Amino acid sequence: MSTSSPPRDGEEFVAALRGLSHRYWGTHPFHHRMHAGELSEHELRVWAANRWYYQCVLPQKDAAIISNCPVPEVRRGWLDRIVYHDGAADRDHASGRERWLRLCEAVGLDRTEVLDERHVVPGVRFAVDAYVTFARTRPWIEAVASGLTEMFSGHLMRRRVGDMLANYEWIRREDLAYFTNRIEAVAGEGKSTLDIVVRYCVTREQQDRAIDALSFKCDVLWSMLDAIERAAAKE
Amino acid sequence: MSTSSPPRDGEEFVAALRGLSHRYWGTHPFHHRMHAGELSEHELRVWAANRWYYQCVLPQKDAAIISNCPVPEVRRGWLDRIVYHDGAADRDHASGRERWLRLCEAVGLDRTEVLDERHVVPGVRFAVDAYVTFARTRPWIEAVASGLTEMFSGHLMRRRVGDMLANYEWIRREDLAYFTNRIEAVAGEGKSTLDIVVRYCVTREQQDRAIDALSFKCDVLWSMLDAIERAAAKE
Repeated sequence: MSTSSPPRDGEEFVAALRGLSHRYWGTHPFHHRMHAGELSEHELRVWAANRWYYQCVLPQKDAAIISNCPVPEVRRGWLDRIVYHDGAADRDHASGRERWLRLCEAVGLDRTEVLDERHVVPGVRFAVDAYVTFARTRPWIEAVASGLTEMFSGHLMRRRVGDMLANYEWIRREDLAYFTNRIEAVAGEGKSTLDIVVRYCVTREQQDRAIDALSFKCDVLWSMLDAIERAAAKE
Repeated sequence: MSTSSPPRDGEEFVAALRGLSHRYWGTHPFHHRMHAGELSEHELRVWAANRWYYQCVLPQKDAAIISNCPVPEVRRGWLDRIVYHDGAADRDHASGRERWLRLCEAVGLDRTEVLDERHVVPGVRFAVDAYVTFARTRPWIEAVASGLTEMFSGHLMRRRVGDMLANYEWIRREDLAYFTNRIEAVAGEGKSTLDIVVRYCVTREQQDRAIDALSFKCDVLWSMLDAIERAAAKE
């Protein structure tokens, strides 16, 4: 076990976390095909309806982190994430949820079939549920570390907007509001999250667990896309 | 078992919940003595330092409810409670936490001894932890129902401010900002919480569980005060 090793210095720790970028779903074959314009409308619909299930649970995942975190400053800073996805009480239209629903409509789904989750396949459900369970049951700092995929997402989403507009002529820029908005939200490339992880993971063991948490999250996303790819190929 | 009984109508259900008011800690002997001006400074300090532990976990309890709740509208409405206790990222001074700390200082505690929880006795810790565990592990609507003690708290706190100002001459109105502020926050006497509970507890069994949840919460608060009373009597 590595528990007897000295902790990595900050730079080394961050490098180890960043070193997981190749595990991020940006390199998944389904995403490659998406960006290349090779997905059928059916495949895009399966993707959008299934990823909805993931989008849906993000506020609950973030609330689990707040629930488990005894540090008021961290809780205060994390709260915006819930508002980002759920919207504020007086402006539902501005939520991440709503932007994802618009994308679903753009690819030809109606709201009802998205909201009732009829298209969500078991593999996606299991992976996403595992993520929420992780956030609810593991130490809060590991759950925070699992969200460090935001270090990798900005680059992918910037490419996505360009590639989807170029390769799917029926998709308009406003349909991609989820991504254009999200690009701004992760513009810091996870800097503030990384700062929290570096600050609170001070032993080698805590650092190892943070790396494992990020690795786990990469597995969650990758498995989702595996299940989506398989489901989409069926029809 | 009552699961085969028909559900209560709304009015009857609300009456059953309100019927628990005699179990609320407003009638606890320690509170009676507090209001009568009979507590020593030492007793007030034990009370304030122990109740701090309760105040501290409220944002985490509320985040657990949000984490477990799949209804976006409820989540959006509930979020303000976290902000109420923790404060927003840019205004720590306005938080319920901070107002409680000020009260602690007013009764002669310094911040360090409150924050490090050295005065928190096991009985208080167990009761409060049980409340957070309840919110984390029970269906969200039961956790919401457990918060219905806010139906009973406005009356108690209004009396408290008057009685404490009248009976403890060294306590000033601004020291009681936690209560004066909280009186406003619960001015609706739990109406919005009650609306959620009535709306989502539609079967007799769900109603019974909501009543049990409120009863449980009354036990939590009462036990806290029992433990505080015992600890305060020791010196």
